[in-house]
Amino acid sequence: MAKDIEVGGPHEYGAKDYQDPPPAPLIDPEELIQWSFYRALIAEFIATLLFLYITVLTVIGYKSQIDSTAPGAECGGVGILGIAWAFGGMIFVLVYCTAGISGGHINPAVTFGLFLARKVSLVRAIMYTVAQCLGAICGCGLVKAFQRAYYVKHGGGANGLSEGYSTGTGLAAEIIGTFVLVYTVFSATDPKRSARDSHVPVLAPLPIGFAVFMVHLATIPVTGTGINPARSFGAAVIYGKAWHDHWIFWVGPFIGAAIAAFYHQFVLRAGAVKALGSFKSTPY
Amino acid sequence: MAKDIEVGGPHEYGAKDYQDPPPAPLIDPEELIQWSFYRALIAEFIATLLFLYITVLTVIGYKSQIDSTAPGAECGGVGILGIAWAFGGMIFVLVYCTAGISGGHINPAVTFGLFLARKVSLVRAIMYTVAQCLGAICGCGLVKAFQRAYYVKHGGGANGLSEGYSTGTGLAAEIIGTFVLVYTVFSATDPKRSARDSHVPVLAPLPIGFAVFMVHLATIPVTGTGINPARSFGAAVIYGKAWHDHWIFWVGPFIGAAIAAFYHQFVLRAGAVKALGSFKSTPY
Amino acid sequence: MAKDIEVGGPHEYGAKDYQDPPPAPLIDPEELIQWSFYRALIAEFIATLLFLYITVLTVIGYKSQIDSTAPGAECGGVGILGIAWAFGGMIFVLVYCTAGISGGHINPAVTFGLFLARKVSLVRAIMYTVAQCLGAICGCGLVKAFQRAYYVKHGGGANGLSEGYSTGTGLAAEIIGTFVLVYTVFSATDPKRSARDSHVPVLAPLPIGFAVFMVHLATIPVTGTGINPARSFGAAVIYGKAWHDHWIFWVGPFIGAAIAAFYHQFVLRAGAVKALGSFKSTPY
Amino acid sequence: MAKDIEVGGPHEYGAKDYQDPPPAPLIDPEELIQWSFYRALIAEFIATLLFLYITVLTVIGYKSQIDSTAPGAECGGVGILGIAWAFGGMIFVLVYCTAGISGGHINPAVTFGLFLARKVSLVRAIMYTVAQCLGAICGCGLVKAFQRAYYVKHGGGANGLSEGYSTGTGLAAEIIGTFVLVYTVFSATDPKRSARDSHVPVLAPLPIGFAVFMVHLATIPVTGTGINPARSFGAAVIYGKAWHDHWIFWVGPFIGAAIAAFYHQFVLRAGAVKALGSFKSTPY
Repeated sequence: MAKDIEVGGPHEYGAKDYQDPPPAPLIDPEELIQWSFYRALIAEFIATLLFLYITVLTVIGYKSQIDSTAPGAECGGVGILGIAWAFGGMIFVLVYCTAGISGGHINPAVTFGLFLARKVSLVRAIMYTVAQCLGAICGCGLVKAFQRAYYVKHGGGANGLSEGYSTGTGLAAEIIGTFVLVYTVFSATDPKRSARDSHVPVLAPLPIGFAVFMVHLATIPVTGTGINPARSFGAAVIYGKAWHDHWIFWVGPFIGAAIAAFYHQFVLRAGAVKALGSFKSTPY
Repeated sequence: MAKDIEVGGPHEYGAKDYQDPPPAPLIDPEELIQWSFYRALIAEFIATLLFLYITVLTVIGYKSQIDSTAPGAECGGVGILGIAWAFGGMIFVLVYCTAGISGGHINPAVTFGLFLARKVSLVRAIMYTVAQCLGAICGCGLVKAFQRAYYVKHGGGANGLSEGYSTGTGLAAEIIGTFVLVYTVFSATDPKRSARDSHVPVLAPLPIGFAVFMVHLATIPVTGTGINPARSFGAAVIYGKAWHDHWIFWVGPFIGAAIAAFYHQFVLRAGAVKALGSFKSTPY
Repeated sequence: MAKDIEVGGPHEYGAKDYQDPPPAPLIDPEELIQWSFYRALIAEFIATLLFLYITVLTVIGYKSQIDSTAPGAECGGVGILGIAWAFGGMIFVLVYCTAGISGGHINPAVTFGLFLARKVSLVRAIMYTVAQCLGAICGCGLVKAFQRAYYVKHGGGANGLSEGYSTGTGLAAEIIGTFVLVYTVFSATDPKRSARDSHVPVLAPLPIGFAVFMVHLATIPVTGTGINPARSFGAAVIYGKAWHDHWIFWVGPFIGAAIAAFYHQFVLRAGAVKALGSFKSTPY
Repeated sequence: MAKDIEVGGPHEYGAKDYQDPPPAPLIDPEELIQWSFYRALIAEFIATLLFLYITVLTVIGYKSQIDSTAPGAECGGVGILGIAWAFGGMIFVLVYCTAGISGGHINPAVTFGLFLARKVSLVRAIMYTVAQCLGAICGCGLVKAFQRAYYVKHGGGANGLSEGYSTGTGLAAEIIGTFVLVYTVFSATDPKRSARDSHVPVLAPLPIGFAVFMVHLATIPVTGTGINPARSFGAAVIYGKAWHDHWIFWVGPFIGAAIAAFYHQFVLRAGAVKALGSFKSTPY
């Protein structure tokens, strides 16, 4: 008769105070005939478009400043810190805006992780990924249309391995970075935690945005930071020359998301223990 | 009998759990005889004054630092990142302070978008816009009064097209930037979302401020970032020399706000579907 | 029988849904015999000590970096942006920590504004100011004890007019800056707003910190930014050479706080109207 | 019959509206047979691993940029401001994610402070510290594995006294810095405050992260900022050459945490008064 003791104040719940939703079916014919499904696709498309538009424009502007010959101008730019803010801040704003419409994924790796955890159906996962990739292409296209000369000169915001880093390092950086992001997403949307800690549902979009901000601070010097296959894909399509290591920015994020889903479902939510019935515990 | 399924946990509501307020009338004679209406005008005036005062002072201070001949001083300034923070941070603070008094618009484009969605009356929209423009003029005037020499030398914080960008590009940048802002405002004040997601009403002023921050990071190199006709107008009036492309900073934001209002009301809130009665759905 | 209409959704309250606390007496003999009063003084002392310690250490560190002869080092420092963050971020953290103990003033100007609005007694206001000034002196003393050479060389974080700015400009900058801060404090602690908008009580410490951050971004180039007489006084006492314009950093913040108290109580909370019984309104 | 008056609105509570959990036992055999205990250890291990991975990678990237010979590149880096954000932001994200699993310590000094206040058992405190140190070693090891050349060249993110600062100064900087952090943690998890101020439980992870951010801004130039023995230990183990002043980064944080625990329990929560029964007060 083990109790579940939480640090910082024991909670004793006679009955479960939260409800896990049932696993999403692989294919849910119901959702295909609803307007809310198509509305969610539109929201993912628009959000990813805005995400790439703002962030790639910031990257291009940053690189123009570094190149500038005006005295002092190279110091007054937004810097890598500003770029990291652009990525993290936009995710905060867009998750806030679209969470109630589409769940606020804006990233195929997040969609993949939530699919593995059976939070979204297979059909929805595929359609979201398509909408996100199309949105990313359009967002990058807008930036290129604005100023083709700067866009091409400054690399189009495309991801790639920096000099001095091996393929394995880049892949690892993408895996761990995406793990940080998707782990935060799972923590923020866990119905068990939401029911117990008031800060979990309220702050949710903010730590998700900060996770993206932090990962960019750390890995912009390594790979330019993908952790979002749609972002890497859109930039590569429009820039047209960054296909060499492009697989890293799909394989890495998907592996990272899978590990995060496994960590959350089997370790933190004790799925493994529940399955084995061990530890004399009545896990929940 | 379609259900409305939200990603991340289905909600099934027997009855609507929120209430849309009725559309605001074009002219509401009641509001003209109330103190709260005039109080709101005062609040919008003061807020826009403070907004322009703090932000333009930051811009002028930044440019002085870049010009400085002291060794290292050009690197220690606030940078474009600091300017973007000044704009975004002030909007966060001022929306927080005035939301309960006037709705916290501080921007004619936001007022215009909310008017199109019938959230404010025509009379209120016009009077707010006048109060905002007067506040912006006074805020810029204060900065000029502080230090006329620096103010004139460093361009007075006025908006304008940067070298290398066409009129169309500048207009598009203003449209998309204002879309990001007004879309966030609609998301933050949607009574349907507020009723369902606890983070929506609580965080509201923060993502609105961040949206302004993000747009400034991206488009300061393009147009200096308007997305607020009162801000551009006030700076132009006091600086006196920035009228050439000034129409961009009214037309762009108003188009962006209109698109955001349309996107929110007709796509996300399914106004179009409701009108057509299609999709076998009972939209709400 | 006017209604009180709020933009963004009309509220109709049959009865008042909030309660203004009664005005604090000038002298409350009760509070002098309570441990909670002395505990509040200790909390104000410690908080102001930590505030000055962290911020002045950041300022000194920043100036050492600018002076450095190591290549590139002058660019990698925290910059004025980092200093502004130090001041704003510490106020956020310390208001969060002490709000429930002492009200979280950490600033004689805030105490003065709340005294004018009759939120604290005269005795409490005076004792808080003394505790804050002592805390500030100790905080600055710690920094000087750490590294006397750097401390003296880099000006000790003391406030003063920058070259090219007149006394009147400095005074005006302090008045408006303190107005922004104290206006935010009043907005954050208004019981009427707390009862109606869920974001008001929850976010409270964050916009207060951001207000401080924003004012520092704007006025560090003008006066170094006081808006807190204890901060200016502590730095002047320990540095020992910054007394010339010191009166600005007491008079300015106190005038700014008084205007903010007047604006909030008489304009936004309609005290003036209530007194006059005008506008055919039944103000609340 | 003294009342407990809080500034900003008196609260009169007939009965206590909160409940202090009973002190944790030194050794709790119950917790050792529960899966939730081991899950908490895993969560602390992973969180500290991610913390060191992201932050040390940011430090190394920053130093590479300063060294760069590319024109302008030394100015576009993340700067000390970016490093401070990396530390503070990761703590925000990780406390948010792990608070419900392990309490979100991620720092032996925090664990030590909470142990002194009898919030966690001795066994749990020791095991957490071990898990945190192992996690820190693994996190730093990952960064070294990524790019051994840069890692060694740029000091491996190890803590140490900067030139010109004495051992006593470094120790004092660590003590005060950790005091700021652990004081914030106590403020954020105080059940009495949580019951009365809505912002306390909701924002909790944010001011904890900001406290870390602020302390880094101030003391990176002094010691590189430890305030977390696991962070200093992990970096020292992997770098292998930073053992000289290493004791500072254990002794300092533990003293700081002890003072914070004392300050919170005996001064702010009036433990001393309660014990003495003085001040004619009925403290709570």
